Amino acid sequence: MSSKKSKIAIYPGTFDPVTNGHLDIVLRAIEIFDKVYVSIGINPAKTPLFTVDERLELLNRSLQGVDRVETSTYSGLLVAHALEKGAVAVIRGLRALSDFEYEFQLALMNRKLAEDISTVFLMPHEKYTYVNSSLIRNLAMLGQDVSDFVPSPVQDALRQKFSK
Amino acid sequence: MSSKKSKIAIYPGTFDPVTNGHLDIVLRAIEIFDKVYVSIGINPAKTPLFTVDERLELLNRSLQGVDRVETSTYSGLLVAHALEKGAVAVIRGLRALSDFEYEFQLALMNRKLAEDISTVFLMPHEKYTYVNSSLIRNLAMLGQDVSDFVPSPVQDALRQKFSK
Amino acid sequence: MSSKKSKIAIYPGTFDPVTNGHLDIVLRAIEIFDKVYVSIGINPAKTPLFTVDERLELLNRSLQGVDRVETSTYSGLLVAHALEKGAVAVIRGLRALSDFEYEFQLALMNRKLAEDISTVFLMPHEKYTYVNSSLIRNLAMLGQDVSDFVPSPVQDALRQKFSK
Amino acid sequence: MSSKKSKIAIYPGTFDPVTNGHLDIVLRAIEIFDKVYVSIGINPAKTPLFTVDERLELLNRSLQGVDRVETSTYSGLLVAHALEKGAVAVIRGLRALSDFEYEFQLALMNRKLAEDISTVFLMPHEKYTYVNSSLIRNLAMLGQDVSDFVPSPVQDALRQKFSK
Amino acid sequence: MSSKKSKIAIYPGTFDPVTNGHLDIVLRAIEIFDKVYVSIGINPAKTPLFTVDERLELLNRSLQGVDRVETSTYSGLLVAHALEKGAVAVIRGLRALSDFEYEFQLALMNRKLAEDISTVFLMPHEKYTYVNSSLIRNLAMLGQDVSDFVPSPVQDALRQKFSK
Amino acid sequence: MSSKKSKIAIYPGTFDPVTNGHLDIVLRAIEIFDKVYVSIGINPAKTPLFTVDERLELLNRSLQGVDRVETSTYSGLLVAHALEKGAVAVIRGLRALSDFEYEFQLALMNRKLAEDISTVFLMPHEKYTYVNSSLIRNLAMLGQDVSDFVPSPVQDALRQKFSK
Repeated sequence: MSSKKSKIAIYPGTFDPVTNGHLDIVLRAIEIFDKVYVSIGINPAKTPLFTVDERLELLNRSLQGVDRVETSTYSGLLVAHALEKGAVAVIRGLRALSDFEYEFQLALMNRKLAEDISTVFLMPHEKYTYVNSSLIRNLAMLGQDVSDFVPSPVQDALRQKFSK
Repeated sequence: MSSKKSKIAIYPGTFDPVTNGHLDIVLRAIEIFDKVYVSIGINPAKTPLFTVDERLELLNRSLQGVDRVETSTYSGLLVAHALEKGAVAVIRGLRALSDFEYEFQLALMNRKLAEDISTVFLMPHEKYTYVNSSLIRNLAMLGQDVSDFVPSPVQDALRQKFSK
Repeated sequence: MSSKKSKIAIYPGTFDPVTNGHLDIVLRAIEIFDKVYVSIGINPAKTPLFTVDERLELLNRSLQGVDRVETSTYSGLLVAHALEKGAVAVIRGLRALSDFEYEFQLALMNRKLAEDISTVFLMPHEKYTYVNSSLIRNLAMLGQDVSDFVPSPVQDALRQKFSK
Repeated sequence: MSSKKSKIAIYPGTFDPVTNGHLDIVLRAIEIFDKVYVSIGINPAKTPLFTVDERLELLNRSLQGVDRVETSTYSGLLVAHALEKGAVAVIRGLRALSDFEYEFQLALMNRKLAEDISTVFLMPHEKYTYVNSSLIRNLAMLGQDVSDFVPSPVQDALRQKFSK
Repeated sequence: MSSKKSKIAIYPGTFDPVTNGHLDIVLRAIEIFDKVYVSIGINPAKTPLFTVDERLELLNRSLQGVDRVETSTYSGLLVAHALEKGAVAVIRGLRALSDFEYEFQLALMNRKLAEDISTVFLMPHEKYTYVNSSLIRNLAMLGQDVSDFVPSPVQDALRQKFSK
Repeated sequence: MSSKKSKIAIYPGTFDPVTNGHLDIVLRAIEIFDKVYVSIGINPAKTPLFTVDERLELLNRSLQGVDRVETSTYSGLLVAHALEKGAVAVIRGLRALSDFEYEFQLALMNRKLAEDISTVFLMPHEKYTYVNSSLIRNLAMLGQDVSDFVPSPVQDALRQKFSK
């Protein structure tokens, strides 16, 4: 009976670094899915603040103790990665209208490439509306306290990065 | 183990009448959830084209043969209905930007009223972008063929309604 | 040779009453098309300020002396009216983002109903961004001078309407 | 008589590369105008995938057999190019809300620079909503089949470009 | 010296009933202006839940103890009321994108009618994003606790209204 | 009495270069505030057309004779600069919907960093809707007359910059 099949989802992103807004989405996603992969997309054209290995470690430490969540990385097509993991859905956070159309185009293209994988949009708590990785990096660079916006391993890593 | 718990979702709406766009969302939802309730919200302030009983029958006939889907009705708060059904999520179709903010406000309010129920946004096929119940009613009233936009029981019901 | 065929367009609306913003669109349209029909859509479900006959007369008087423009009325489907007039396009003014999605849905539906008729969006002068018939009616009802926003026949008609 | 004057339009873009969405707009435009110039804007500040010459050749081969269409290139102001060609209108595709405001600002500025040239917005078929040149380049780089999204000369050129 | 002149602002609305989101805007406004009038616009075409007198009393009781704030009512043009009060600005809360364009059109029209009165947009706290009077009325009608969203005099008034 | 306290505001920006749209906002702001600082934010990551010193001089010359306005520069956090100047508000121009969400995120973050400083949104005249510094730089580079869009000191500076 098909309802017994395990429902797996991918939550892709750059996570440079992971924020409390991202974690909020992960916690909502595992209430819906049986397993969630938080997956770092590797984009050689970009120069992130943290390396893929650093970002993966920060994700792992921030997600410690959260059941049914795994981390992974992928390069190339997201839907190929999703199919490989047996996912039925791709999860995207929708914070604001400005996210909307880019996400819609992406979702339409992904559906075209892999009909059976749905894009599922979840809404983070409104207190994370203005939290994004780029803003966090800027605040940390200016020496601001970012403890309200990121998990503590990320806070430490940012402090180290910018104290050099 | 929590992953074994059945994941139930509510797909609420007015369904006056149900369209192919609605059905498209239902079919996507049952790929993600173990059970989906398609629930007609009863709003005494509105005067729909079809009565609640007619809408329920049209839903039932249009969903015939689709596993793990049930129909229901509710009056009062959606989240109260969702809690009663043991749902972890409310499903909403997001066709276009104009849906976005109303849906966001609703989702934020529902979260405030019942923290544990997430709103999950799904995107219908782009060919249903311009299909909504109000447009369908207008086309049918003008005697247009709406067979591309609604399931056949609805087509028959519309023809009957407007031939009088 | 197909380039010799006369290019006809329909500019549909409620025109309750016609504003300077509407006239601005008409004048732009006749630079592009060989003939433009300004067509009042009759909607029995609405109760306009001016009757169809009054609106038609106000349109005719406001468009006096403008070549290659005719007025008309239609009930039922816009595309049926467009086909009857031999139009290749439906003209819509796009003043603001809030017009956008409604117009898109309409245009998609019209294309579905009549593949060969394109919707052409034109932008009125930015000084007409905030001018719409409903605002005009309110201002006139409050006894305000609306001479900057409507042609003079409309100004007279509004004064008469609200002096009673 | 002014209705006999040939109505010419410019359809400007980067076309890096031309997609089926672009072609869809061209085919709609020639139903409205007597002649359409598809014009590549040369921007020295950008580093496109294809050179201007390659893009022009791909446009020419993709538009082969389409009557009343010519290709051209321009640097500097678009409206200067439009005036030089005797155009009464600039054509822009409006696929989505995110296109809207940038296009509006551009259209307002162009009107300021050349009052007599209108911007005409056309809507591509909804199946091209998610098709844009940047997405196509990414898919092709990842070795994906893009035959649904681009004309066959472009498909060949992309394959060659990325097989090196 | 002009900096000594008292800066007065009008905060207009329907306030049916006043919410914590409205109060949040008032408190922000008096940090900027020397005096703020919270003004109920009387619209004979609408049938509010609370009468003008009830709304005025609820405003007065909710604003008790707040310095430099007065309440008033007006019918007719907002800018006429603003000029009469000697206001330099009209205050509007901007909660969300859906407020944006309507507010912009209104502000442009008001500027046209009274050049010297600016519209000042303030943003309520994000926790009030989803709070609006219509939602509050619905929740109260369904017997829900609305104590998080409205001042206590309003809470009492709603309870009384719906217990009848 | 608190209404006697001087109300100070900061109007931050890049001003590369200052446009008539910026000046329009400044003139509106001094009708509301007792003093306005027009402040250039120094961002080492960007390479502007004009140096900070040039931009400051252009601001000073363009604002000559305007009472109660001062110019300043800041690096680091805007709210730190605002607190240092004793400001109660940060002023932002809101020209168009595309400005909206970025501005909202910024305003929310600034409120989080300094609760007592409000963001005040003002609307420039609609004739400046399409005027932004980047467009001005492009037009000037192409040798276009920009006298309608910038104050004359900026016009001279642009001519000199691009005649080299």
